[in-house]
Amino acid sequence: MHKEYLQQAIALASENVTSGHGGPYGAIIVKDSQLIAASGNKVTCTLDPTAHAEIVAIRLACIKLNDFQLHNCILYTSCEPCPMCLGAIYWARLAKVYYACSRFDAAAANFDDSFIYDEILVPPSERSIPMHHLNLANALQPFNIWTEKSDKVVY
Amino acid sequence: MHKEYLQQAIALASENVTSGHGGPYGAIIVKDSQLIAASGNKVTCTLDPTAHAEIVAIRLACIKLNDFQLHNCILYTSCEPCPMCLGAIYWARLAKVYYACSRFDAAAANFDDSFIYDEILVPPSERSIPMHHLNLANALQPFNIWTEKSDKVVY
Repeated sequence: MHKEYLQQAIALASENVTSGHGGPYGAIIVKDSQLIAASGNKVTCTLDPTAHAEIVAIRLACIKLNDFQLHNCILYTSCEPCPMCLGAIYWARLAKVYYACSRFDAAAANFDDSFIYDEILVPPSERSIPMHHLNLANALQPFNIWTEKSDKVVY
Repeated sequence: MHKEYLQQAIALASENVTSGHGGPYGAIIVKDSQLIAASGNKVTCTLDPTAHAEIVAIRLACIKLNDFQLHNCILYTSCEPCPMCLGAIYWARLAKVYYACSRFDAAAANFDDSFIYDEILVPPSERSIPMHHLNLANALQPFNIWTEKSDKVVY
């Protein structure tokens, strides 16, 4: 059954390219054996660099379930999630993931997935996109307000 | 100047909590010394687990610049980007990033940023959200179609 759902994600990825909608990726989300969301990559057609198939499928599933978490949902994706999508999977609290291609297959097609995984291990200020930590006296203020807030919605 | 922009991101993060809009995070994007996008975290108020401050700011900046890449733009964020946002920063091709708090400050406030960074180093199938690679004969089909497509929009 897992292979059948993964075949759907692959078919979506292929169709996404042939139709001209975007990159060669497809993802579907299933809950209790029901398909609840599906998307191809929509980066170029929506001018949104975050619109990977997994991210769009997660957003659609959240709309459908009216929740910001996707407990007991399974993600099937045509390729190993990039670090952005991996992070989104954790924040959405999916149950598990099945994927077909690897980050190295993506690299062979000139996508940066594997490169970004490697960059995570580089000290922030030495990355190809440098990330500089500045010390500011009030940096912790937002977290302090959050911790003290009694009526917050935890996520 | 970088500290001033970062102060704006911190102020946005604090206001985001006091106003009840969401988590204690804020991000702004600047190009050629002009503020082009700003957002707090919008996960709970939009029911979108991907709506971190950085991700929303990137999306807004792309709409404003009518592009899916943000060359020569600088991101200022109240906290070190989580893996999801780090990935988005690479896909959007920002020039650099300045941040105030660290992933460990976020962990102290019960956010999973540091945990997700640690999970990346765990073999996929052994992660707390297991990610299983299934071997399918046609897995590479989407990449093959992509490679052969002559009129594709590369991103």
